Amino acid sequence: MKTALIGFGRAGKAVASVILTNPDFKLEWILRKRPSLTGRSASEVLGIESDDPGKVISASGVDMEKILDENPVDVIIDFSSEEGIHRYGKAAASKGIRIISAISHYGDSEKSLLRELSKETVVFWSPNITLGINYLMFASRFLQKIAPWVDIEIIEQHFKTKDGISGTAVKLAEALDVKPADINVVRAGGIVGKHEVIFGFPYQTVRLIHESISREAFGNGAIFVAQNLRDKPKGLYNFEDLLHPYFNDHLN
Amino acid sequence: MKTALIGFGRAGKAVASVILTNPDFKLEWILRKRPSLTGRSASEVLGIESDDPGKVISASGVDMEKILDENPVDVIIDFSSEEGIHRYGKAAASKGIRIISAISHYGDSEKSLLRELSKETVVFWSPNITLGINYLMFASRFLQKIAPWVDIEIIEQHFKTKDGISGTAVKLAEALDVKPADINVVRAGGIVGKHEVIFGFPYQTVRLIHESISREAFGNGAIFVAQNLRDKPKGLYNFEDLLHPYFNDHLN
Amino acid sequence: MKTALIGFGRAGKAVASVILTNPDFKLEWILRKRPSLTGRSASEVLGIESDDPGKVISASGVDMEKILDENPVDVIIDFSSEEGIHRYGKAAASKGIRIISAISHYGDSEKSLLRELSKETVVFWSPNITLGINYLMFASRFLQKIAPWVDIEIIEQHFKTKDGISGTAVKLAEALDVKPADINVVRAGGIVGKHEVIFGFPYQTVRLIHESISREAFGNGAIFVAQNLRDKPKGLYNFEDLLHPYFNDHLN
Amino acid sequence: MKTALIGFGRAGKAVASVILTNPDFKLEWILRKRPSLTGRSASEVLGIESDDPGKVISASGVDMEKILDENPVDVIIDFSSEEGIHRYGKAAASKGIRIISAISHYGDSEKSLLRELSKETVVFWSPNITLGINYLMFASRFLQKIAPWVDIEIIEQHFKTKDGISGTAVKLAEALDVKPADINVVRAGGIVGKHEVIFGFPYQTVRLIHESISREAFGNGAIFVAQNLRDKPKGLYNFEDLLHPYFNDHLN
Repeated sequence: MKTALIGFGRAGKAVASVILTNPDFKLEWILRKRPSLTGRSASEVLGIESDDPGKVISASGVDMEKILDENPVDVIIDFSSEEGIHRYGKAAASKGIRIISAISHYGDSEKSLLRELSKETVVFWSPNITLGINYLMFASRFLQKIAPWVDIEIIEQHFKTKDGISGTAVKLAEALDVKPADINVVRAGGIVGKHEVIFGFPYQTVRLIHESISREAFGNGAIFVAQNLRDKPKGLYNFEDLLHPYFNDHLN
Repeated sequence: MKTALIGFGRAGKAVASVILTNPDFKLEWILRKRPSLTGRSASEVLGIESDDPGKVISASGVDMEKILDENPVDVIIDFSSEEGIHRYGKAAASKGIRIISAISHYGDSEKSLLRELSKETVVFWSPNITLGINYLMFASRFLQKIAPWVDIEIIEQHFKTKDGISGTAVKLAEALDVKPADINVVRAGGIVGKHEVIFGFPYQTVRLIHESISREAFGNGAIFVAQNLRDKPKGLYNFEDLLHPYFNDHLN
Repeated sequence: MKTALIGFGRAGKAVASVILTNPDFKLEWILRKRPSLTGRSASEVLGIESDDPGKVISASGVDMEKILDENPVDVIIDFSSEEGIHRYGKAAASKGIRIISAISHYGDSEKSLLRELSKETVVFWSPNITLGINYLMFASRFLQKIAPWVDIEIIEQHFKTKDGISGTAVKLAEALDVKPADINVVRAGGIVGKHEVIFGFPYQTVRLIHESISREAFGNGAIFVAQNLRDKPKGLYNFEDLLHPYFNDHLN
Repeated sequence: MKTALIGFGRAGKAVASVILTNPDFKLEWILRKRPSLTGRSASEVLGIESDDPGKVISASGVDMEKILDENPVDVIIDFSSEEGIHRYGKAAASKGIRIISAISHYGDSEKSLLRELSKETVVFWSPNITLGINYLMFASRFLQKIAPWVDIEIIEQHFKTKDGISGTAVKLAEALDVKPADINVVRAGGIVGKHEVIFGFPYQTVRLIHESISREAFGNGAIFVAQNLRDKPKGLYNFEDLLHPYFNDHLN
């Protein structure tokens, strides 16, 4: 699958390294805001052996239509920022290129644009694109459905300098009707990321835990999404939509 | 719901205490092998305030048909041993009484009898009847379906004197294709019971944990089962069958 | 060792059950505020086989001197409330009886009285008398000494209805200079009690965890204390004083 | 403190990166077996900003005396292999250079050499040089001293491809008299490293846990050791020796 990446920060680099080494995917180019690294190949920048072109392209003054014509791809994976979609969205959708966005937050204007684009192509958006976290969300909501009265609290732990509550924890809390006061926040040392959903029953406790080892998890998540979008008709999708078919399978 | 209990050992007592205090259930009588406590009421034996009769009946020389005629019930909950079903099974089924068995192990003859009885009434059997453990099993198998290649190991921890591998851990291992060597067994102090299913991804780890606080969890599990069997047609059921409708709900 | 117990609530009962079955200790009597159970033996009330007298005595209108003369003991273990010490303290100290108090909170007047009494006998006071929690406190402070700059946070988890922050967590926080905001409080289901001290280093995390299984832990803690006070001269002691000799041992 | 590093594999590189950015240490040179990277500076190879020379020197045909004369250092940190000590040991000791070895295993000949060298200089050796693991070992042995009869088991978890039982777990087991069968080994996904020592009491459980985030922890451990060896007289030291003074402090 010919792939392009938008963004080449820490997350983008981790995702690129995963795509470069995946035999089913070919990283064609990377679009980034900053001009540094322009013209170099991702494999060379990251020190990874790969035949993928992975050419770094600066976004300033770029003609998206031209880039997409000269370097066609099947799917675009966006790890840049909330403005990114405005840059490549329309051009990509008009060519039927599938869009996978992992941007952590979009405003109304971007959400509106996503809906627009989804009329022409497959558009996927998830603020957290790791398989593990999305599974946690799904599995948690399911347990709450079975036992609506169970006590639920969340503990999220991250490195000392991480600002604010983890977006993932906030999203989990919203999905489970957990009060913000019941999101317990730990900031200590170099903890990469740990989320725990605690289900307190009268005589037993269930704990669903997700531990991040490193950002490459985003890359594997993006790949999982790309593979599962392959046969989908145009429209707007989130991670939960991709998990449904496995549920159906699971019932039979 | 009028309820009868078979067995009054540690598990049976814990279950009885939960039923006695649940307003939707009325414990009518308890059948046990040992003659001690015969004639006394469960609430009095356990020191729990309740109007439920909960009369303790000795199984020796008892005429099940007569007991069921004189003390009719809607459901029988079995926490005795694998012979129990032979005692009350046919009589209960012939009267359309629902049977809920939590016996940890049945041989072929008992399994055969269960299938027989299920032609006449609703029969439920689960070696572990806690909601938490059955949820863990279901949620684990679902994650494995999404990520068939993920590494899975199991850790089960119990009090020092517990013999052999936890039946729950064995069942989890079978369901997930985990090699017996990958069931890690800890025996220490007074740990009531802790099961952990570890899913090792390249860049993230998911841990599904169940901790037992006390045996009353069996009681709440039996109650959950009784409530969810209410509208079911006759047949043979296990815990997973009861979780399916919640999945269907979850998808829509 | 002849022992008396002050208080017969949930903690007191759990402690009594442990002492009754310990061959090195003989429970002579129990003093309690409420008049119920007066005259009965603890073993009979708790349904535990033991030859210990364990006679329940009502505190109202009681003459402590007389009780201590007629039923002499070596040590008194107090699990009642903060007024208790005023009742038995002076009489016990004058007879050189060792006092072990596990009262969670004392005001200035009680603390003053303890110091008074410690001039005549061995007086021990610890708000939490379990070996595990006191070990956690000691081990935590030691790690902080080795790495004064490490990030420390505390997570305490208890059953849904537990009011206020765990006194143990508050004490841990004070000992480690952890800000109250960094004590994370979870209230869910029937969790008996779990305390975790998290030490966040840049590239590793150390977690010291204590899990309560049941209140009998207080009994074993009281026994540990009684055994370790045996050779001590009169004075005022806390749990840390009892752990020091093991440290000295540990160094050599 | 002028520092030299022996070995530049994954551990060596992680340690180098920590030393390069520590203002109290200056990485002068790195001796390695393989000829690649010879002549380059560590900061340039690792892409880290630092003024430290950190010159990579190939060990083949090298004259240690000459290297040490031309590039004097205060301390040598060894992360190479068990043969390393034979290369630099005598030359370093004769110049009174402190030796810090983190080699995971030495045979009798090397141990003998270490003792020899310790007559002339300060020699430190620890198979695991992280502060966290050594603390765990010390704290575990202390708890066992307080409660000699407590049940102890160990769980070690690592990435799928790690061969054999963790050396750290083996060392912990030996120190605590834990039977090899009670070392539970989990191999799954990308788990960097997690060691848990479980202390099972009848009514409470204590868990001491160490989680590795990344190899830079070795670097911080080596730095801790270097700082704590500063005032020591010549002799042979291990990590426990360095923790003792903190214990003494802790007692007073």
